[in-house]
Amino acid sequence: MTELQIVWVGVCTTLVFFMQAGFAFLEAGAARAKNSVNVLMKNYMDMCLGGIIFWGLGYGLMFGSNVTGWIGSNQFFPQQFSAAEAIKMAYQIMFAATAATIVSGAVAERMHFGAYLVFSGLVTGIVYPVYGSWTWNANGWLAKMGFVDFAGSTVVHSVGGWCALAAIMVLGPRLGRYSRQGEVRDIPGHSLPFVGLGGFILWLGWFGFNGGSINSFAEHNLGVVLLNTHLGGCAGGLGALAFMAARKEPVLMSATVNGSVAGLVSITAGAAYLSPLAAILVGFVGGILYVFGVRLLDKQRLDDVVGAVSAHGFGGVWGTLAVALFPQGPFSFSALWVQVLGVVVAFLWAFPVAFGLFKVLDKVLGVKASSLHEQRGLDYTEHYEVAYPEFQKRLDADA
Amino acid sequence: MTELQIVWVGVCTTLVFFMQAGFAFLEAGAARAKNSVNVLMKNYMDMCLGGIIFWGLGYGLMFGSNVTGWIGSNQFFPQQFSAAEAIKMAYQIMFAATAATIVSGAVAERMHFGAYLVFSGLVTGIVYPVYGSWTWNANGWLAKMGFVDFAGSTVVHSVGGWCALAAIMVLGPRLGRYSRQGEVRDIPGHSLPFVGLGGFILWLGWFGFNGGSINSFAEHNLGVVLLNTHLGGCAGGLGALAFMAARKEPVLMSATVNGSVAGLVSITAGAAYLSPLAAILVGFVGGILYVFGVRLLDKQRLDDVVGAVSAHGFGGVWGTLAVALFPQGPFSFSALWVQVLGVVVAFLWAFPVAFGLFKVLDKVLGVKASSLHEQRGLDYTEHYEVAYPEFQKRLDADA
Amino acid sequence: MTELQIVWVGVCTTLVFFMQAGFAFLEAGAARAKNSVNVLMKNYMDMCLGGIIFWGLGYGLMFGSNVTGWIGSNQFFPQQFSAAEAIKMAYQIMFAATAATIVSGAVAERMHFGAYLVFSGLVTGIVYPVYGSWTWNANGWLAKMGFVDFAGSTVVHSVGGWCALAAIMVLGPRLGRYSRQGEVRDIPGHSLPFVGLGGFILWLGWFGFNGGSINSFAEHNLGVVLLNTHLGGCAGGLGALAFMAARKEPVLMSATVNGSVAGLVSITAGAAYLSPLAAILVGFVGGILYVFGVRLLDKQRLDDVVGAVSAHGFGGVWGTLAVALFPQGPFSFSALWVQVLGVVVAFLWAFPVAFGLFKVLDKVLGVKASSLHEQRGLDYTEHYEVAYPEFQKRLDADA
Repeated sequence: MTELQIVWVGVCTTLVFFMQAGFAFLEAGAARAKNSVNVLMKNYMDMCLGGIIFWGLGYGLMFGSNVTGWIGSNQFFPQQFSAAEAIKMAYQIMFAATAATIVSGAVAERMHFGAYLVFSGLVTGIVYPVYGSWTWNANGWLAKMGFVDFAGSTVVHSVGGWCALAAIMVLGPRLGRYSRQGEVRDIPGHSLPFVGLGGFILWLGWFGFNGGSINSFAEHNLGVVLLNTHLGGCAGGLGALAFMAARKEPVLMSATVNGSVAGLVSITAGAAYLSPLAAILVGFVGGILYVFGVRLLDKQRLDDVVGAVSAHGFGGVWGTLAVALFPQGPFSFSALWVQVLGVVVAFLWAFPVAFGLFKVLDKVLGVKASSLHEQRGLDYTEHYEVAYPEFQKRLDADA
Repeated sequence: MTELQIVWVGVCTTLVFFMQAGFAFLEAGAARAKNSVNVLMKNYMDMCLGGIIFWGLGYGLMFGSNVTGWIGSNQFFPQQFSAAEAIKMAYQIMFAATAATIVSGAVAERMHFGAYLVFSGLVTGIVYPVYGSWTWNANGWLAKMGFVDFAGSTVVHSVGGWCALAAIMVLGPRLGRYSRQGEVRDIPGHSLPFVGLGGFILWLGWFGFNGGSINSFAEHNLGVVLLNTHLGGCAGGLGALAFMAARKEPVLMSATVNGSVAGLVSITAGAAYLSPLAAILVGFVGGILYVFGVRLLDKQRLDDVVGAVSAHGFGGVWGTLAVALFPQGPFSFSALWVQVLGVVVAFLWAFPVAFGLFKVLDKVLGVKASSLHEQRGLDYTEHYEVAYPEFQKRLDADA
Repeated sequence: MTELQIVWVGVCTTLVFFMQAGFAFLEAGAARAKNSVNVLMKNYMDMCLGGIIFWGLGYGLMFGSNVTGWIGSNQFFPQQFSAAEAIKMAYQIMFAATAATIVSGAVAERMHFGAYLVFSGLVTGIVYPVYGSWTWNANGWLAKMGFVDFAGSTVVHSVGGWCALAAIMVLGPRLGRYSRQGEVRDIPGHSLPFVGLGGFILWLGWFGFNGGSINSFAEHNLGVVLLNTHLGGCAGGLGALAFMAARKEPVLMSATVNGSVAGLVSITAGAAYLSPLAAILVGFVGGILYVFGVRLLDKQRLDDVVGAVSAHGFGGVWGTLAVALFPQGPFSFSALWVQVLGVVVAFLWAFPVAFGLFKVLDKVLGVKASSLHEQRGLDYTEHYEVAYPEFQKRLDADA
């Protein structure tokens, strides 16, 4: 790595770090005021806990010497670094935190804080890096088969999405979310501006997420990566908007922002390879998929507060397949097949493992807050702090 | 372009991108809660829509082959890029979105969302790039005359400001803003902290806006550009504050933040050329001009919710003239004359064209929300979402 | 300086700039709504005023020719810069603003705005740069003795912390903070999400604060600096959390965020020298120290609204000593002694000088708002603007 690359990855490290704030505000805004401290704390602690766990354990599993192709086996708790190793460690720590934090929004408003922290640590330390060792470790078995995922549509986002799916299946929906007749009751978040802030910050961070994933300035065109990332996000927002407008439904800001996130997820696997036109198409479909996916899950009574499974899980699948569907050279069925394989393997690894871990956690610690606590709000019951003491006191008095 | 320049412009691309969030929060905070989702959506969609339009259309008009000096004529919907071309495209997309989004704050709280999107697209796709082709295209007729606008006091900010002026003239003021006797009634925004957040983010982004506009590290002194940018912003805030204090008026935070924005606008044209002392003077006067300009417009019953015309339009004029007023070499009347010409031409192009387009939009789509909708708030009537459901429900119940 | 270094310091300049927004929101969130505009304005003006004062006066005192080792004596109001000088000036301006703004949170909710601005200017222009000239000027007497403070645990943070301590001692506590029996009454801030936002932004900026302090890419390992910074922040949050949990107390988000800030302060002096394991230990202890220090001050009836003295003052001391306690080579008592000396000298300089200046300000201008104004809230009494007009009107009507 040249000094210039180290500086660039350093910049991108800070940008990906800031995505944690993006998730925190996107999710806190989508939660009710009474649960917003809980959401913020989960994101903050994902970062604190995840940073140390991935440094000590996850990095070695993912990038350590990988003889079998199935798992890294050294570089745990590393103390000495070359310049290139150190910056890679810092950058990858931020990626791992991103994968883990995808779960926090899905399970918002009803999960115990302590159990969440344990689950988040397991995702960062085991679920994410093991799949990563198959795909982003040079000796990984999927990598060797030619699986391509530039910056992690599958490796980071789908894996996080499937962990979130497992979690909400075990956890069950929030009180009052679904009626006995199967109707979905809308539970609006407490601050749309925070949803918007989260969207802007995530988008900002994504330039580092995709931009920092280039191998070298000669191998990849950095400007194209940034341009495609942006166009994918733009098209994702437009796709969600157009889908709602075409169905004569209200054009919701929350769905538009999440549509752009889905667009960004979708463009992540191919940001360095696609043409701008393909990037727009990929992002646009990603945005539509988001709105569609949220409804599909709601039909199954799967309550995902921010639509994380849809944006990251489904968007990630689509983006990963799109790399083979819009190839730089001639279309190849075998390339598409490897992409399909990678996508399916991600699900087959992350979903059952996360499901099992979550079940065990439920037995050992209990994952779901009591109905009484859920009604009162987790901020009070788990943290003894409320988000807006002056304003909430008044609401409570009125209630 | 060297790899280092590409990296630096890449960094600046992300910073200028984030200015969109700055505008969004500066404006949303200055609007009432009932219109804040609408404001955020406008800024978000400026970015989504503008990104694709400028990539497909605006960039070619602005930077394409310009034989006549009056318009670019190729590079539309580009698919292939060299490293330098790609990063320039990404960077310039962010600039175009900035120009368009200046309008959103001025027209807040009373304009239809759909009509706004069309207008924003026309600014990004036509009004902004055409003037840009005269000044920032190497073959532009104003460029060839020696017009100097380093990072766009006129090219971006004044053009955006004049579009905003045209829009608010056609649109008319908010209900209750001016009494029959010509008194100005204060309509406070709903969140001063958001105004502050917007100011901080805009300032942050401005380092990329000005810093990324250097031609090379040899030709311009990057440190001086960043330093002048900062000092201009500092002095703008102080200028607004000092002006209010000198008149024994309340020293408003909203005006101080916008004063610093006006200072940043003012220093944009000459950030690479001025001495630090001149940068302070230019910013200081810019900040005073802002407060003064807002009052001037209010006397004309021109209702600009955030003072965008004043900050960007007037500030841009002053900053562009300042390049010739504080020259690096001896003062030259002909240089000043070219600056005056560029400033006047910007107005003569942007204002009537925007005015005409807005009038046509009014005929075809209708631009102004009904009084009933304005009273109810655009968030509910245009988006079916409110910003703070829990808190606003209570306010409504009390009202 | 190479062009690459200039670009990197340019990036870091923007990151450290943004820390001002981090402080603003951390502090505004920790204040009641009725004082939040005042807090934001203080931070905004620290930046505006401090930028110009440090350019004109402070920089020369700190980095000018230093014959005696006790004070810089030239480079005041500089107009001409080499590329390296200009970027250093821009970067150092942001550092100075950071030192000054540490005070603003401690004195929140009860201090006159005008007097604050004068004090802030004196910290930026005199208190901070004089100590800086002893340590970061190549000829400074402490520098020559071998005092090591990589990015300013003592030079920036402790000095700011001791100024804050002096200020709150003169100022006295907020109304109702301490009962006659010595009980501490909790005065919760108005927005926990803003506290979280501030924490995220500060952490982001810290990568520039520590990262930009490397001398060259050959001398320091940038990746290690960023990694240690992150691990220190992670461990600080965990330390505060673990300390509260171990005492069976509520695990407060406000304390956790401030614990991570204390961890970041602690790792600042040694970010380039420590091993990752040492960084974690240093941050962890810093986080514990924060919670502990806040209680210690409260026992003395010293009312520090955000715990700035604890996070920056105590955290800075610990971090500076840690450089010698976890040495790269063999442990040396003389190295530890020099670190102790630097820490003690920082206190002996900053505390009495700040105390004296504050006392003089109190005589001349008066520093404390009247009880009536304190009850009404400084936003109304000092700025004639409130943070959330629509929501606060309702609270007032109810009160």
